[in-house]
Amino acid sequence: MKKTLIAFAATAAAGAACAGNGVPAVGLNMFGVLDATLAYGSASGGSHRVQLTNSGFNSSRLGFRGSEDLGGGLSASFWLEMGVNPDDGTGVASSTNNQQAAGGASAGSLTFNRASWVSLNGDWGSLRLGRDYTPTFTLMAGYDPFTVNGAGTTLAFTGFSIRRATAQGPYPASTSTSPGVAFPGGPVATRARASNSIGYMTGDNLGGFYGWAQYYLGENAQDGAATEDDGSGYNARFGYAAGPVDVSAAYGKTKYALLGDFRTWDVGGTWKLGNLQLNAEYVSDRAGGTTLTGGIGPAPLDGKGWMVGGSYVAGPGLVRFSYSGYKVDLGSGPVSRKAAIGYVYYLSKRTAVYTTYAHLWNRNGATSTLNGSLVGAGLASSASNGLDFGLKHSF
Amino acid sequence: MKKTLIAFAATAAAGAACAGNGVPAVGLNMFGVLDATLAYGSASGGSHRVQLTNSGFNSSRLGFRGSEDLGGGLSASFWLEMGVNPDDGTGVASSTNNQQAAGGASAGSLTFNRASWVSLNGDWGSLRLGRDYTPTFTLMAGYDPFTVNGAGTTLAFTGFSIRRATAQGPYPASTSTSPGVAFPGGPVATRARASNSIGYMTGDNLGGFYGWAQYYLGENAQDGAATEDDGSGYNARFGYAAGPVDVSAAYGKTKYALLGDFRTWDVGGTWKLGNLQLNAEYVSDRAGGTTLTGGIGPAPLDGKGWMVGGSYVAGPGLVRFSYSGYKVDLGSGPVSRKAAIGYVYYLSKRTAVYTTYAHLWNRNGATSTLNGSLVGAGLASSASNGLDFGLKHSF
Amino acid sequence: MKKTLIAFAATAAAGAACAGNGVPAVGLNMFGVLDATLAYGSASGGSHRVQLTNSGFNSSRLGFRGSEDLGGGLSASFWLEMGVNPDDGTGVASSTNNQQAAGGASAGSLTFNRASWVSLNGDWGSLRLGRDYTPTFTLMAGYDPFTVNGAGTTLAFTGFSIRRATAQGPYPASTSTSPGVAFPGGPVATRARASNSIGYMTGDNLGGFYGWAQYYLGENAQDGAATEDDGSGYNARFGYAAGPVDVSAAYGKTKYALLGDFRTWDVGGTWKLGNLQLNAEYVSDRAGGTTLTGGIGPAPLDGKGWMVGGSYVAGPGLVRFSYSGYKVDLGSGPVSRKAAIGYVYYLSKRTAVYTTYAHLWNRNGATSTLNGSLVGAGLASSASNGLDFGLKHSF
Repeated sequence: MKKTLIAFAATAAAGAACAGNGVPAVGLNMFGVLDATLAYGSASGGSHRVQLTNSGFNSSRLGFRGSEDLGGGLSASFWLEMGVNPDDGTGVASSTNNQQAAGGASAGSLTFNRASWVSLNGDWGSLRLGRDYTPTFTLMAGYDPFTVNGAGTTLAFTGFSIRRATAQGPYPASTSTSPGVAFPGGPVATRARASNSIGYMTGDNLGGFYGWAQYYLGENAQDGAATEDDGSGYNARFGYAAGPVDVSAAYGKTKYALLGDFRTWDVGGTWKLGNLQLNAEYVSDRAGGTTLTGGIGPAPLDGKGWMVGGSYVAGPGLVRFSYSGYKVDLGSGPVSRKAAIGYVYYLSKRTAVYTTYAHLWNRNGATSTLNGSLVGAGLASSASNGLDFGLKHSF
Repeated sequence: MKKTLIAFAATAAAGAACAGNGVPAVGLNMFGVLDATLAYGSASGGSHRVQLTNSGFNSSRLGFRGSEDLGGGLSASFWLEMGVNPDDGTGVASSTNNQQAAGGASAGSLTFNRASWVSLNGDWGSLRLGRDYTPTFTLMAGYDPFTVNGAGTTLAFTGFSIRRATAQGPYPASTSTSPGVAFPGGPVATRARASNSIGYMTGDNLGGFYGWAQYYLGENAQDGAATEDDGSGYNARFGYAAGPVDVSAAYGKTKYALLGDFRTWDVGGTWKLGNLQLNAEYVSDRAGGTTLTGGIGPAPLDGKGWMVGGSYVAGPGLVRFSYSGYKVDLGSGPVSRKAAIGYVYYLSKRTAVYTTYAHLWNRNGATSTLNGSLVGAGLASSASNGLDFGLKHSF
Repeated sequence: MKKTLIAFAATAAAGAACAGNGVPAVGLNMFGVLDATLAYGSASGGSHRVQLTNSGFNSSRLGFRGSEDLGGGLSASFWLEMGVNPDDGTGVASSTNNQQAAGGASAGSLTFNRASWVSLNGDWGSLRLGRDYTPTFTLMAGYDPFTVNGAGTTLAFTGFSIRRATAQGPYPASTSTSPGVAFPGGPVATRARASNSIGYMTGDNLGGFYGWAQYYLGENAQDGAATEDDGSGYNARFGYAAGPVDVSAAYGKTKYALLGDFRTWDVGGTWKLGNLQLNAEYVSDRAGGTTLTGGIGPAPLDGKGWMVGGSYVAGPGLVRFSYSGYKVDLGSGPVSRKAAIGYVYYLSKRTAVYTTYAHLWNRNGATSTLNGSLVGAGLASSASNGLDFGLKHSF
């Protein structure tokens, strides 16, 4: 697992010291990223918008972590990491139960929503308890040249919403048929991270093979209600990283009784050719279906996302590019596609300025937009533009 | 900064008990505990439940503290300590006014709910201003072999709820006659800690005698309402610790105009016999009463808790055991009793794995349960089981 | 800008290492202030009140900041600073959109409300992105001998409320005609700080001249609503500091479509005469007006504040004194005036005990009070007293 996680961590939080299995170096460290972004968005037939937003290149955060050598090859580690919005000083709420009604802290409160775990580590791997990324997400984010930050974020991650035309149980009908970020009734809490998780990650001695399996609990009261297991699920990723190649696949499933279980599988990889790296990934999402809810659930709905792209190191600069799309298997099959190109100039290992430009096309009724631009009333947007300029500093 | 943090390593907060003046070492330190617990609970005639919870051995936290030598034997200190839930990254709200409607921060927000004070210290003792433990609580927690963490927590602490059969003022009638954690209308905000407090702790030069007196303010607007002094109160503890013996007694009272003032006194001690330590404590709670509310209050209600137990150090291991109970002086006199045994294995001074098993009996209509298990509808639970497995790491 | 900002930072957070442009020293630092205040207030014809409050001398906080030398005279910095209430361990919500309905985090949640920015710095000055003080506020606070903390706070800052007799748009009519801290519909979010800001500060090479210009965004959806630009504005300060003299002026304007834009200008200075320093400032506030809202807005309302005062260093002691007032241009012209005197005794550079006494007079129907005292029902208060005792410790 070492190489992949190092690659992910190094891209997402350059300057942070990591070792195998994501175990922090022995000691006690404070770390973080502040990334402020001037973001412009426009939609054809709609409005444009300018904002000072965050994290166009790296996710802004403040964290505390440490590790202790226990002898005999064993170590213990902890990791506490809060999301921070530098533009206004607020934080990000967490999900206490992996469910749509998240519970726990109002929006904007500081919480350790990004990571909160304690682990035991050895040659045999690592056992983690707490709140952590899901394996399926680390694949999506790790193979995206834009690491799911800013205007260039792969649609394979953000387009996972699966819409329904009618209300089901407590979940309202979707008002849009566009690929987007919202799941009916709210976001899927375990898209990126899971609370109450128990995870096992393999060690570094498998000849390039790596694996990560995770089980998590929704922790509703066991009162006999149909939803008593909502928010529970599992997620796993397996791969191979050696020399210039890193490939992997992942699968996860979370229980939601009334809406239908949410399942995702994804596969992808990177290939290094000197200063050039090529990236590709494919994501399949499915919500619900009668076979999963005892014959009483809604019909299943599927969505598919894909991305091809890469990056090129040119001295202190990094060029990033990608083409991605997401299609929902509903009605006319709304689909959005995005092309993105960006340039990062490193002022130092820790500090960079960057710009990203993305253009998005909608087809078959899709109405996705970029950087907060709005579609005009009664109009379908055929296209949207996003432009980011930013300053990233990590510590 | 990192050097300072690294320099601080092993002094971490172990347990909930306070010793001496609690004055941190000179310098500026970050410290904390992450304790993740796999907790199983079952109730006879009801459901079982499995959760990844927190703090089965030590209370999870992140804190910042420091001290400054002012010369002439005087020093100044501060302490900021937030509760952290490692299982989901959320925090714990505080109480701004020591009252049932707590005010301040939604549930799950990070706050410095565990401690937030500044102090002046000398040979004469210590003057603390801010949010702090109550003296009565430090006795209950300090003499419990399980330090009020996890399935083994003494009922003398958790059983303090005093129930009423009819609504009084803004406080609803209790729906249960069982000892439990809820006070009518919500928890007593000053059971464990008090905000807006002014405290004095004696120094170390009293030949083994020690004392702590605390006054705290509810800070309602002085508008002439009957409740204008709600949440104000005082609390004190006095004791003697020398050689193998530590004994003490404490008393506290908090004003609540409509429900009646809440008063607690407790007494207990520990006795060391080589590797064995014996512990015992007794707690008396009283809510309301006409003599306290000017002749218009409800009749007083009492509850009594007790605990006998101890611990044994066996190499890197620690065996803990206790038997505790709580009885409410209401109707048929519902009573719960609990027997608990646990084992802690220290992987290092800072890191431990542990397990605790507890069995609880209910009598006279009590319906207490352990680890979130539920009593079946229409049933009284005669017994409940709790089992914890966990990993604790402090820094 | 250097001297003024250093002076402000040093008063507000003594013990913190600062350099020109508020750029922290190279490295990574944790810093903070805990200031607990026993505050007494009384109002003639009304009630008195005693509270353990906070920040009677310095604003309590916990922060993290750092800077990186990028070579060639360039550096990058970040600053994250949360307000902390030591009396109860809670924090302070931020404003995500610079508007009355603040958005983001419930009251009492910890957020980095005090500062949250990343910057690039060079000889040419400093470019800051994020949440920061407004220039108009740094003038008000920096020239107040009491740095807008505690009972002595200049009325030029707190008296900025401008009242209206009738409701306008979503803003209710004011129920009081007194100078106070509330703007109709709630506080003006950008009185002290602005989110989503882009600021430029001059360097140290202008022969004593300094400047700071800031633009900030409300970031409402661009949906064509009249309020779509609410919370956006600009703010700037220019001055000269050399030898014993520091003088400056500032102006800021924030858009609010229905209430009318809020504009403030202020001017002031300090003059050092050995151990004595004299301070003076004048503040002009204006809310709304038809010329600003396309002919449909309310009539403009003005308010004016002023302060004269100073401080004297006597060994380890500091005497502070001021006389300030605020008048609202409405009806009979309610006006409040305050005289304040205080003494700070430094136990060390980082730790101090202090006391402040203030007396406030109301005229023409004004009903301001100090330290939470209340005016009796149906009475106008002609006077109010405030008395603070406190302990401040910074790290």
